[in-house]
Amino acid sequence: MDLFEAIMTRRSIRNFKNIPVEKETVKKILEAAMNAPTAGNQLAWQFVVVTGREMLDELAKAHPYADSLLSAPLAIAVCGDVKAEKHSGFWVQDCSAATQNILLAAHAEGLGAVWLGVYPRAEREKSVSKVMGLPEGIITLAVVAIGHPVRKLSPQKRYDESKVHYNGWRG
Amino acid sequence: MDLFEAIMTRRSIRNFKNIPVEKETVKKILEAAMNAPTAGNQLAWQFVVVTGREMLDELAKAHPYADSLLSAPLAIAVCGDVKAEKHSGFWVQDCSAATQNILLAAHAEGLGAVWLGVYPRAEREKSVSKVMGLPEGIITLAVVAIGHPVRKLSPQKRYDESKVHYNGWRG
Repeated sequence: MDLFEAIMTRRSIRNFKNIPVEKETVKKILEAAMNAPTAGNQLAWQFVVVTGREMLDELAKAHPYADSLLSAPLAIAVCGDVKAEKHSGFWVQDCSAATQNILLAAHAEGLGAVWLGVYPRAEREKSVSKVMGLPEGIITLAVVAIGHPVRKLSPQKRYDESKVHYNGWRG
Repeated sequence: MDLFEAIMTRRSIRNFKNIPVEKETVKKILEAAMNAPTAGNQLAWQFVVVTGREMLDELAKAHPYADSLLSAPLAIAVCGDVKAEKHSGFWVQDCSAATQNILLAAHAEGLGAVWLGVYPRAEREKSVSKVMGLPEGIITLAVVAIGHPVRKLSPQKRYDESKVHYNGWRG
């Protein structure tokens, strides 16, 4: 799929068919994730791939807006490894860029996905970490639910000229 | 350009030819930026497009690692609009996803780009905001330097299997 097509037609998908995602596709998505840029190439991240039905259901319960995990055959948790940072505090941005690559890669593979925000909500972060057994210092930025979409959604263009300012701020 | 090709071959580009970026291309890049997902579709962001030589040079001086702006014909500052947030604190992730889309879009258009981190470094944020005349509540996440690359860099694959954990944490 063309890059601009992928970016402009991607939508958040929250309902999935009961079909697993192929291992090769998961690998391709992870390769895309880890090719996101990181501050000073610090690569202070970790990825948890969840395919077990029980853990997916537990994750759905551990997050207030994660019902999409109840039908998803796959979740990827994108986590910062804060002790591995060379440039402290940038892990959020690094992991967000990786998450965006995951969404685009899934879409280009004909899958659907939705970004479920975890950090900076402390209670979500705690409960989600517990389900996955994360050690101290590994912070979940987001859990991405991924699978074959029940239905495709029409593209939405969100460009807003009023949010563009040229050569300095123009109210 | 194919999505995976774009993701896997993009590199940080820091030296640019003295050629402007076409207005249509800037628009296409901004459309890509604003099609990134945001928490609860809050769209709490603003974009400052800088093409004036003087302001680009001032931005280079306002940031400790922004020499790339001295040759760049274009910069896009990606800013959070914190007063417009519906889901407080998520603007960093929203703006990071938009920044990643900018990098990919620039690359797909045959341009080069580099993500210059600003937030959460308070001193950079302050000085960069001053140059662009940003009002209170508009926080610069990053300035992206963009232009025609002096030379192209070979792809780098950063996939690391040791950072992937299956169905929970495995040290």
